[in-house]
Amino acid sequence: MAALAGVSVSAVSKVVNDRPGISPPTRQRVLDAAEKLRWSPSATAVALRGARTRAIGMVAGRSADVLAADPHFSVLISGIEAELAPADYGLLLHIVGEEPDAEERAYRRLAEERRVDGVILTESRIGDTRFELLRQLGLPAVLVGTPWQPDPIVSVRAGGDDLDQGAGLRAAVDHLVELGHRRIAYVSGPEDRVHTVARRRLFEAALDARGLRPTRIVISEFTADAAVRALRRLLAEPERRPTAVLFANDTMAVAGMSAARRLGFEVPRDLSVIGYDDLPVGSLVYPRLTTVSQDLVQLGRAAATAMFRLLGEAAGTAGEPGADGSGADGPGADGPPAVRPPTLVVRESTGPAAG
Amino acid sequence: MAALAGVSVSAVSKVVNDRPGISPPTRQRVLDAAEKLRWSPSATAVALRGARTRAIGMVAGRSADVLAADPHFSVLISGIEAELAPADYGLLLHIVGEEPDAEERAYRRLAEERRVDGVILTESRIGDTRFELLRQLGLPAVLVGTPWQPDPIVSVRAGGDDLDQGAGLRAAVDHLVELGHRRIAYVSGPEDRVHTVARRRLFEAALDARGLRPTRIVISEFTADAAVRALRRLLAEPERRPTAVLFANDTMAVAGMSAARRLGFEVPRDLSVIGYDDLPVGSLVYPRLTTVSQDLVQLGRAAATAMFRLLGEAAGTAGEPGADGSGADGPGADGPPAVRPPTLVVRESTGPAAG
Repeated sequence: MAALAGVSVSAVSKVVNDRPGISPPTRQRVLDAAEKLRWSPSATAVALRGARTRAIGMVAGRSADVLAADPHFSVLISGIEAELAPADYGLLLHIVGEEPDAEERAYRRLAEERRVDGVILTESRIGDTRFELLRQLGLPAVLVGTPWQPDPIVSVRAGGDDLDQGAGLRAAVDHLVELGHRRIAYVSGPEDRVHTVARRRLFEAALDARGLRPTRIVISEFTADAAVRALRRLLAEPERRPTAVLFANDTMAVAGMSAARRLGFEVPRDLSVIGYDDLPVGSLVYPRLTTVSQDLVQLGRAAATAMFRLLGEAAGTAGEPGADGSGADGPGADGPPAVRPPTLVVRESTGPAAG
Repeated sequence: MAALAGVSVSAVSKVVNDRPGISPPTRQRVLDAAEKLRWSPSATAVALRGARTRAIGMVAGRSADVLAADPHFSVLISGIEAELAPADYGLLLHIVGEEPDAEERAYRRLAEERRVDGVILTESRIGDTRFELLRQLGLPAVLVGTPWQPDPIVSVRAGGDDLDQGAGLRAAVDHLVELGHRRIAYVSGPEDRVHTVARRRLFEAALDARGLRPTRIVISEFTADAAVRALRRLLAEPERRPTAVLFANDTMAVAGMSAARRLGFEVPRDLSVIGYDDLPVGSLVYPRLTTVSQDLVQLGRAAATAMFRLLGEAAGTAGEPGADGSGADGPGADGPPAVRPPTLVVRESTGPAAG
């Protein structure tokens, strides 16, 4: 187009980016050339900027109802948006379903068609191949969570080391033990997730530190129905019945609590219940849910901030100081804000162990 | 670029879109030219396609926690994604905060920088200026809900005419009256929303049809805290106390139900409670929430399908048959699927009126 307009590429760049230092006639020649070639100035600008899109991608290899079924996602996205919005970035959501390759195909398209400047990953899985794929694609990536094995990908999580990670579950176990509970069960999620296995182990370690073993551990799904089934199993056999149950997330805990009350068990009189995440639903219900609180909003913010930093560095190395999305215009220049370790929030669903 | 490469624009188009009919040397000349000008083939392709982005925009003039605080949004987005994903479209979310002009600025940027092919609007408001703005910007738009005044904007809603719209609330009132309730209150949301006012009026009409007047109508906010405050006011004065309360959404209803039980009122023994939307939380809690169900997922699907149809027609008139995003590759070719009218889902939170 520069050739057709008979001007320099930098002149084209100035025109399409609306920067000063261009004479009206030159500007007109560029716009005429653009029209002849049917470029849209915006797309031209995108190309000259090195295809900055001011969009961050998030791909979920889940069914489309993941946002409705798993509030965890919505809260995380709220945090991400809280950083993207002031920097005039949008979040490009692709919920691609659960076919094995759908997520990989989506990342390939995002990279090859330059639809986003980078992607934020969640749900770190055992044997996760996404980190390597994204490096091959040259797509900047930030993981919310811990990689399943040592990996150079930038990741953010609640608290720093494993000790931090376990703080919330240790506090939950201590809380229950101090209330006289000795028969404590755990309802876990699908163990293909890194955090699912990690939390179950942290729970076992916390019990062990108090000289206890889990009464029972049920490997379940992250759904309300699965939680109800798990709870029915836990309460079925009087001699093995726990006096307290921890659930891998709040939705499961609330569903389990309701199922217990439907079976005639008062919460917390007959059964204490603890959730994980501290989602809004926990304070909506009666009794209010005692839960391990991780700051998901702050996690989302930290992920977005880490992404801005990646993009800023990328722009820097690409010799494009001040390019859109550089750390300078995102809040990311100072690096990701720290995210506090998980803590216990004691509400109404825990009480003294039934004698 | 065509000029620099010394080939035709259509040849450039074929190369960047990877279509047949181009000799290797020609192809190479184009790629060389692209490299000289630092175009990315992808961005070039976007420009030649008329800047199709395969992204649909959604701007929320709300605080970043809207997704966390208002599950209604998440469910709607789930429906939108269910149509976008198979067509390889993404949803570009911009949650821009509540400053008066933030939403308008966001739409202007999306249009001027061609970041999306169209936008889906929600939360139709009284005096809404967005429809006119989007027409000025030439940005295809679909509204979920009913415009505040007759407007050419394409809109989708649950059920067709006003009679349909009221079906759920009429069924709710009939259900309560048949259970012996005569003192029925309504907790509404902020009345700057079109649907808020419409629902409150439909409730009044439904009562009127049974020869009743509302015991009380409280104009509130769409938040749990506001719902708790409203319920406390309703239960404060024994002589004016209702035996049943309808809430403008499920979150408010669940919060109100918990507040009532905390005040010593058993649900449904002392107070029947009905929500609106049929969000997942309603079946999580105990007692399960009786609610007016509108198919939000289907509403989202219908909005996305209507958008594909708009884009298809746009591509058609632009003489780009088969251009990406045309109705042909989206599920939208057949027009938006119908969305059923609201219906009542009777669960556990309603029962015979306290004598």
